[in-house]
Amino acid sequence: MLDVTYRLQIPHKPGQLARVTTVIATHEGLIGDILTVSLHRDSTERELTVEMRDTAHAWALANDLNALDGVRVLWHHDRAFLRHEGGKLRIDPVRPVTTPQEMRDVYTPGVARICSAIAEDDALASRYTMIGTTIAVCTNGTRVLGLGDIGPRAAMPVMEGKAVFYKQFAGLNAMPILIDTKDEDEFVETVMRIAPGFAGIHLEDISAPMCFEIERRLIEALPQPVMHDDVHGTAVVTVAAAIAACRHVDRRLDQSVVGQIGLGAAGYGIASLMRDGGARVIAYDPNENSHERARAAGIEIVSMDEVMAQADVVVATTGRAGLIRPEQVRPGSVVLALTNPVGEIEPAVALAAGAAFAADGRSVNNVLGYPGIFRGALLAGAPHITTRMKLAAAWAIAALAADNELVPDVLGDEVHAAVTEAVRSAAVDEGIARPELVPAGL
Amino acid sequence: MLDVTYRLQIPHKPGQLARVTTVIATHEGLIGDILTVSLHRDSTERELTVEMRDTAHAWALANDLNALDGVRVLWHHDRAFLRHEGGKLRIDPVRPVTTPQEMRDVYTPGVARICSAIAEDDALASRYTMIGTTIAVCTNGTRVLGLGDIGPRAAMPVMEGKAVFYKQFAGLNAMPILIDTKDEDEFVETVMRIAPGFAGIHLEDISAPMCFEIERRLIEALPQPVMHDDVHGTAVVTVAAAIAACRHVDRRLDQSVVGQIGLGAAGYGIASLMRDGGARVIAYDPNENSHERARAAGIEIVSMDEVMAQADVVVATTGRAGLIRPEQVRPGSVVLALTNPVGEIEPAVALAAGAAFAADGRSVNNVLGYPGIFRGALLAGAPHITTRMKLAAAWAIAALAADNELVPDVLGDEVHAAVTEAVRSAAVDEGIARPELVPAGL
Repeated sequence: MLDVTYRLQIPHKPGQLARVTTVIATHEGLIGDILTVSLHRDSTERELTVEMRDTAHAWALANDLNALDGVRVLWHHDRAFLRHEGGKLRIDPVRPVTTPQEMRDVYTPGVARICSAIAEDDALASRYTMIGTTIAVCTNGTRVLGLGDIGPRAAMPVMEGKAVFYKQFAGLNAMPILIDTKDEDEFVETVMRIAPGFAGIHLEDISAPMCFEIERRLIEALPQPVMHDDVHGTAVVTVAAAIAACRHVDRRLDQSVVGQIGLGAAGYGIASLMRDGGARVIAYDPNENSHERARAAGIEIVSMDEVMAQADVVVATTGRAGLIRPEQVRPGSVVLALTNPVGEIEPAVALAAGAAFAADGRSVNNVLGYPGIFRGALLAGAPHITTRMKLAAAWAIAALAADNELVPDVLGDEVHAAVTEAVRSAAVDEGIARPELVPAGL
Repeated sequence: MLDVTYRLQIPHKPGQLARVTTVIATHEGLIGDILTVSLHRDSTERELTVEMRDTAHAWALANDLNALDGVRVLWHHDRAFLRHEGGKLRIDPVRPVTTPQEMRDVYTPGVARICSAIAEDDALASRYTMIGTTIAVCTNGTRVLGLGDIGPRAAMPVMEGKAVFYKQFAGLNAMPILIDTKDEDEFVETVMRIAPGFAGIHLEDISAPMCFEIERRLIEALPQPVMHDDVHGTAVVTVAAAIAACRHVDRRLDQSVVGQIGLGAAGYGIASLMRDGGARVIAYDPNENSHERARAAGIEIVSMDEVMAQADVVVATTGRAGLIRPEQVRPGSVVLALTNPVGEIEPAVALAAGAAFAADGRSVNNVLGYPGIFRGALLAGAPHITTRMKLAAAWAIAALAADNELVPDVLGDEVHAAVTEAVRSAAVDEGIARPELVPAGL
């Protein structure tokens, strides 16, 4: 599927847009935003965004629109490419340098005094440099979205996207760091060597099982928070969704049996956090390499049929569309079939089969979690992101989900402020906050 | 020395500023900017910046200003610290994400199409990510300004300053990368692993001799431009200053004997580029470890006395204030004694001793060079920064130096555009330009 923007010139009189949208309907295009770009005496220029199957489908629609009397397709493009032109991030001076005095302040000779002060007291680095408010988003591109191992440079658009939301939702700088190695030791030592320049380390899109050991070693070695978002960010948001889903059907997650299908990076993280949150967790994964790690986290390994028969809440993260058959759905259960773009069972099918609540992966968006999680940790001066902080984030997200929604609106400011405060205060309650480490700029 | 800003409340009537500046004069403070912050009926608030010796000196002046009838010192601060609060760089989205459609464009599902496109054609990374316009400013903090080995975090303010000017003068993103190792192999391999995320590698403040081998190995290994600014940026600006100085005394640099005193990172770079520019170069350095490298670059090693006796143009970068005695100055020679803050010989003393032209290091500012050098290289799609490109930059800078000035105004836009174009066209002339590699965003 792709979102295609069509720039159209349309006669400026009633009924014209109806003709256009009717043609789009015959092509089964799903219409998104419609913007008026310019108004002329006899015509208007509009940009219509339509979700289409593929490039051929997009061209076929363009041709049929062009054939409409009075309508011209000026151009059509994949919107995502338009929005990525030149990249999604920019690095700018906080203040421009316009006078000789300002140059003396930020460069020689003034800068030497700041360097000397930090050399004497390292904690001043958080106050007088960007370090205190900057996150490194580190990847080797070995497991990017559903695309697999596409390498670090092809992963860059995802990293830039993560960084966009760090600033927008948490006021933090975030810099993509592409690390060109698939070797665990090399990855760990590279991050350790560049870590002094960052307040936090966000790991992203690293394949399992390498990702588990990389994260464990970095957490142990580094003084600042480290989190693999595909494991823990996903877990936080999924647990939040499960809490909300249970609430909708008057169930308590911590008194439920949770069944996890798939124990990859996301599945393991979800199952572990469910367990930490008090649920009994049973899980199925045909890959036996995943079992030892899961058992060590208190997760019981069972068959797929047992998961479906026993679990009150089923979470599937297998990458296999249609894996769950309707007859396997236990009446009254909650089913979150999260594989994108097509889940293990369609929500409507699961509901028809007797599920009390069902959803797919579209609304479980990591962006709900990581910006506030890291900001909360930094605001506490916390050296780690603990289980308690992650659970606090999940409950904060779930609390803001409206009736019949799994999660709150990711574009609302409310959820990010709530996650930040929940995580910060969980760190304080746990006794790991260090107020003296909170950077001046936060 | 430090620049101190005093916030003063002064009676709003004639003669008051004269009283204030007279007190400053008795303390031998050098007055910089004077800004009116606010006007009230009976008083005005002003900020005066004064160059003072040290903190005690600054307090003594504050006390005497406070003692003036009707004058109050509201506060006084080291300006540089004020300007560094929270850091000097910020990383921002190019465009904010405000609608669900925009989120679909820059994040899932749209981002996956960009990732796939780059996975198929790596060159698209320069077009659809920030990589094509982003420089890594890499240091291990082993030789920072005149401060020596203060480590990577204390070096951060210098790196942020370099990055500020990359954006301001060359429109490039630049990100400080602090590398926590003093081992040459580790430094090289770390930069190589993170290099895929950057269009160019700027090395900064790395101690000699490690810096030479690090730069050589990275240039050899990487497809993008690599330059150690302390060697080559300094060399470009110093050669430019020497060209301008020679012009002022009707001399040609390429027909002169250049005498280099000191063969550290800067001195070696200057001597090499002078040699590449056609001058005969003789040099003195008591450290014999520096000799082999210099001889390999065509530089003759002689005694200090021989340098002073034979050189038409003397350049000193020794870190030793007052090293050159007046009686050593050869009549008619050009003397650039560049050690900061106090040079090997004061210009006035050198002139009195018979020098035709003399200057110290204050006006030789690397910021004149590196932003345009890297932008020119990127605009050409050049894989390296060659000698010819560096010499072109030097001539471009020298051409804009006014009469009796060594270099043009660093805050003017003219010089950076001129360096960019000189470097770009030198790369084209040399046949190493690859237009297909020029990023879309430049």
